[in-house]
Amino acid sequence: MQKKLAELKARLAEAEDLGHAAAVLSWDQATYMPPGGAPARGRQMALLSRLAHERATDPAVGRLLDDLQPYAEGLPYDSDDAALIRVARRNFERDTRIPSELVGELNEHSARSYQAWTTARPANDFAAVRPNLEKTLELSRRLADCFPGYSHIADPLIDFADEGMKAETVRALFADLRAQMVPLLRQVLEQPAPDDSCLHQHYPEDGQRAFGERVIARLGYDFNRGRQDKTHHPFMTKFSLGDVRITTRFRPDDLSDGLFSTIHESGHAMYEQGIDPAYDPTPLAHGTSAGVHESQSRLWENVVGRSRGFWQHFYPELQAAFPQQLGGVDQETFYRAINKAMPSVIRTDADQMTYDLHVMIRFDLELAMLEGTLEVADLPEAWKMRYLSDIGVCAGEECDGALQDVHWFAGVIGGAFQGYTLGNIMSAQFYDAALRAVPDIPSQIAAGEFAPLHGWLRENIYRHGAKFTASELVQRVCGDPLSIDPYVAYLRHKFA
Amino acid sequence: MQKKLAELKARLAEAEDLGHAAAVLSWDQATYMPPGGAPARGRQMALLSRLAHERATDPAVGRLLDDLQPYAEGLPYDSDDAALIRVARRNFERDTRIPSELVGELNEHSARSYQAWTTARPANDFAAVRPNLEKTLELSRRLADCFPGYSHIADPLIDFADEGMKAETVRALFADLRAQMVPLLRQVLEQPAPDDSCLHQHYPEDGQRAFGERVIARLGYDFNRGRQDKTHHPFMTKFSLGDVRITTRFRPDDLSDGLFSTIHESGHAMYEQGIDPAYDPTPLAHGTSAGVHESQSRLWENVVGRSRGFWQHFYPELQAAFPQQLGGVDQETFYRAINKAMPSVIRTDADQMTYDLHVMIRFDLELAMLEGTLEVADLPEAWKMRYLSDIGVCAGEECDGALQDVHWFAGVIGGAFQGYTLGNIMSAQFYDAALRAVPDIPSQIAAGEFAPLHGWLRENIYRHGAKFTASELVQRVCGDPLSIDPYVAYLRHKFA
Repeated sequence: MQKKLAELKARLAEAEDLGHAAAVLSWDQATYMPPGGAPARGRQMALLSRLAHERATDPAVGRLLDDLQPYAEGLPYDSDDAALIRVARRNFERDTRIPSELVGELNEHSARSYQAWTTARPANDFAAVRPNLEKTLELSRRLADCFPGYSHIADPLIDFADEGMKAETVRALFADLRAQMVPLLRQVLEQPAPDDSCLHQHYPEDGQRAFGERVIARLGYDFNRGRQDKTHHPFMTKFSLGDVRITTRFRPDDLSDGLFSTIHESGHAMYEQGIDPAYDPTPLAHGTSAGVHESQSRLWENVVGRSRGFWQHFYPELQAAFPQQLGGVDQETFYRAINKAMPSVIRTDADQMTYDLHVMIRFDLELAMLEGTLEVADLPEAWKMRYLSDIGVCAGEECDGALQDVHWFAGVIGGAFQGYTLGNIMSAQFYDAALRAVPDIPSQIAAGEFAPLHGWLRENIYRHGAKFTASELVQRVCGDPLSIDPYVAYLRHKFA
Repeated sequence: MQKKLAELKARLAEAEDLGHAAAVLSWDQATYMPPGGAPARGRQMALLSRLAHERATDPAVGRLLDDLQPYAEGLPYDSDDAALIRVARRNFERDTRIPSELVGELNEHSARSYQAWTTARPANDFAAVRPNLEKTLELSRRLADCFPGYSHIADPLIDFADEGMKAETVRALFADLRAQMVPLLRQVLEQPAPDDSCLHQHYPEDGQRAFGERVIARLGYDFNRGRQDKTHHPFMTKFSLGDVRITTRFRPDDLSDGLFSTIHESGHAMYEQGIDPAYDPTPLAHGTSAGVHESQSRLWENVVGRSRGFWQHFYPELQAAFPQQLGGVDQETFYRAINKAMPSVIRTDADQMTYDLHVMIRFDLELAMLEGTLEVADLPEAWKMRYLSDIGVCAGEECDGALQDVHWFAGVIGGAFQGYTLGNIMSAQFYDAALRAVPDIPSQIAAGEFAPLHGWLRENIYRHGAKFTASELVQRVCGDPLSIDPYVAYLRHKFA
């Protein structure tokens, strides 16, 4: 059995390594690649993804999994070997349904589509990428159709990102959340708006970068196993557990954009950096779902990074870094500025009170496109209508509208967005559990001690990687199933 | 036949793309990768190289080549299809002799060895990398032994880099050259040494980078299809004909190091950028040999970049970029400073009169290690002895001695160095041919017009890629076989 397990691991390692090699090419495309590199890069990434898929779906892997099944059944559920065989089997059963050609086609198309988006977005030119998006929709449908028997065509795509979730369950959860949030938001907006002009002065990029990197190093992001670079649309990516990178962007007239993006991505990265090194390179060495991943980025960005205690510690340092801009701004003014609730058009800039409304719009539009009730050609108009009706703002330009997010232009349509709100919900639920275990966390944060929280997260969430599904993890860590209550209570306490 | 040719191209394209993906990972390792990424990176690059090799040596490729042979024989020698089939067959016959496992092992070892070198070199710690180097030697011998029947064990390794060359031919060529150079060098050194203190002031890195990049853009390096980054040991690398990158390093107290390194690497890159785009991605889309490649880098770096005419054009601009440092230095002083002949310990910093002596030392030491007449453990001492006897300088520290060059620490021992001097020889021979065709080139250079020379090189050398071997190319372009005469005449005219 140990020999078969070793062979399984060796085969899975090749698939992982090919996937990570593709990730290096993709990171380079999004950070440093000159324009002339695009055509070959798409072809190269598609080849690597196809080869990774071929290896992951090799019939020999299936035979090894069959042979190892009795061994796995004799092990405790949470043993590493049992978890590896379980997760590998789940992936194998999923991946063998998708033809390698479709994987290659999807990846090649994504690279081309991403490249087109990087120029179409600043040019406000939706027409230029419409054919790409139509192709993406067709490919997304073909991908979903590899999993017949779904209730909603988006179900398989949602399940890829957030296993166990379906369009129906997400819709119900979002409806509940919306019912609680909208009245709260109305209440918040009735109060006088905080003055956030202090954030919109000139902040030189070098200073923003230096401060942000100092902050995340103190939170626990390990720069020996990572780095930060600039890109169009910030993301975290991993090439091994020893190389987990983040990207960011800076706006000279907006301090919070780059800073909170850096903290956000470092939250994703600390999750991956904290996975048990013994899992690398296996399918266990990944965050377990989009939602859990986002819970970790949003926990650090918002629950911690937009808290009073956090700035009690960091604000003097920030003032020292930007004395001209912030020397005369008191901490409470700054705190209120970074927490200003204000309907707006950009999701990544949205405050905590409106953020989920942005997500829900995208989720509904994805579903409508997949269902065929919304044509790609009508997406820009539908986007604007929903922003007017749901958030009360006019997303006048395409760059702030249907071209805003990278997701549909660098991946599939379906399953791309629900994880953001699932993550917000879980961030509050996990943080509640952390506070029950270590009640001192808030005062530790105010004293600049982040190791206790980081340690609790590593012990309870990070190190497990993909060993437990999101719902198993929530139950195990919090003692309850997924619930919106802690999140709603958190928002109410903070904003009301 | 067209169908078979298309299938051959598709198969070769996969091998090329995998090789180029490995090159992206290697570039990243040498520029941006955090230390924690090293272990997995070595494994990943080894996997990609092994897969590239498996594809290149697939028996189906051999069958296609056999089937296409009659077609190729009916075509003119210089037709693209004939050249593709010819070069693909040569590569296939070479690559099929090397087991894929050895390719993987070599690449994995290289990555580990390179990583160790990056820390051992600044630490002057030869002992730390000695076991790596011994392993490299063993692997190099195993690689050579895949080609039994050689006269000298280095022959197959030299042939990889400079097809058609053998240890014996290179030794003879180098002996002739040395016999002419040494008396000339003695003569040069008897003259009063130029004052090069103007180069050794403080030159901020940003200014060095900006000026160097302006220069190479004017020479013809296309930044839309390339970029420059920082590394330990500068190199050129290519991910497709649309993405040909260079790397450099800067010393704040030495203007010429970074500047001429940038021009040098841009020469390599312009060669690759100038290859017929129709060849991408096939085995024709590469420079044809190490020597020809080096001829293009040395031509731009030295024949052009260290000429009076070049600085007649660029010196006022350089003075404007560094007014404090060079405002009071006249052009002739600067010209003499950048051409100062002076025995020294660092190859890449060496002047044109001593450079080839550095190469010859390395070439002889490689051969001695492969023959077994020199133990790796004795390399540092042997290195010092040769520097004393051949160049008359004491390479006291290991970082300036056996640890100086990256080559043995990131590749094989054997075939790594002869290309540098072959390149110098050819640079003069090609430039002579260019002057015969376009006698105005020197005055065009002095007027800042580089397009005529660049165009001539593209037309006569670059665009052909690997279509012709080095000796075919020299014969075709110059009308003569390889000869040291133009190079010796050039040096004599410039320095005597």
